[in-house]
Amino acid sequence: MSKRLGILLSGRGSNFIAIADSVAAGRLDVEIAVVISNRADAPGLLAAHSRGLNAVLLPSRGMEREAYDRQLAAEIRKNNVDLICLAGYLRLLSPWFIREFPMRILNIHPSLLPAFPGLDAQRQALEHGVKFSGCTVHYVDEGLDSGPIIQQAVVPVLEGDTLEALSARILREEHRIYSEAIGLLTGGKRILGSGSV
Amino acid sequence: MSKRLGILLSGRGSNFIAIADSVAAGRLDVEIAVVISNRADAPGLLAAHSRGLNAVLLPSRGMEREAYDRQLAAEIRKNNVDLICLAGYLRLLSPWFIREFPMRILNIHPSLLPAFPGLDAQRQALEHGVKFSGCTVHYVDEGLDSGPIIQQAVVPVLEGDTLEALSARILREEHRIYSEAIGLLTGGKRILGSGSV
Repeated sequence: MSKRLGILLSGRGSNFIAIADSVAAGRLDVEIAVVISNRADAPGLLAAHSRGLNAVLLPSRGMEREAYDRQLAAEIRKNNVDLICLAGYLRLLSPWFIREFPMRILNIHPSLLPAFPGLDAQRQALEHGVKFSGCTVHYVDEGLDSGPIIQQAVVPVLEGDTLEALSARILREEHRIYSEAIGLLTGGKRILGSGSV
Repeated sequence: MSKRLGILLSGRGSNFIAIADSVAAGRLDVEIAVVISNRADAPGLLAAHSRGLNAVLLPSRGMEREAYDRQLAAEIRKNNVDLICLAGYLRLLSPWFIREFPMRILNIHPSLLPAFPGLDAQRQALEHGVKFSGCTVHYVDEGLDSGPIIQQAVVPVLEGDTLEALSARILREEHRIYSEAIGLLTGGKRILGSGSV
């Protein structure tokens, strides 16, 4: 039976859309059981709804972190989710939530971790002057972007690169490797070329 | 006029040999003015001598760091060195020495800095579980492998990689990009393919 994904997002959810496209195209044998947004105005929530997916709004504004995360966990359990995928989810998860789902929460980060964890990873990379950056799919643990690495991709940083150009170049790879990593972990189809630059 | 390199080494000096090969093959328009070893038994010193280069032994054993570095600086000045290249030089440079030659000392490090600075970079990479590693040519400043980056190269970390296999894969790229970086900085010939993975 296909593994069931729960996707958490707060914005446009471009990584969610890439995953949904992989599923729709038959490249990834999983089921998107639920897409949860903590913000009513997240375009990704609308995108999930218009694709006929189970799109759930759980507004977080003003809520205490763990109280909110208990709601979130209940929604995830209700949908029998096997793997939780953060896709631009702009809210820190509580240690309680992370301990509830050990090695079952994935995130994608726009750098070659362990370089440039935290916010503004692409800007950090530009300012540091690295010649290559990339993105990383990793398990979420209680540290900052520090969980075990599942998949990475590399992109060059070009002379005169703007933040926008570099971010777009990395984002294309994010869209590729997130599905790839989910395939690896769920036994869903593995896309050829995995692990290559 | 060709820029003059001073090379510091303590061991086999495989990066020195790669640079010397680039010079001999006409791929790099610089002159190797002096090769200095702090150890009498460094095979790289013999290699320099047998290539007819100016090979100088300055034994460091038992010497106080700055006193030694003052000898080193004198030897470098005597040879009118424009650029100092560390090539497996297993002795920390004193802050005094580093301040004497600002932005004129290069090092090569076997990781994609800022990831995995310090000793055993290849082992650190394996233990962290990254999918890509590489090497970095950088200016030496007073921090630990923290100076401005000049050139980098990426290699994949393969499933089941040993430390030896990964180190060898990285070393091949070290041999390529050190010459490349020297060419960039000295106006010597730039090798095609610079910056590519």
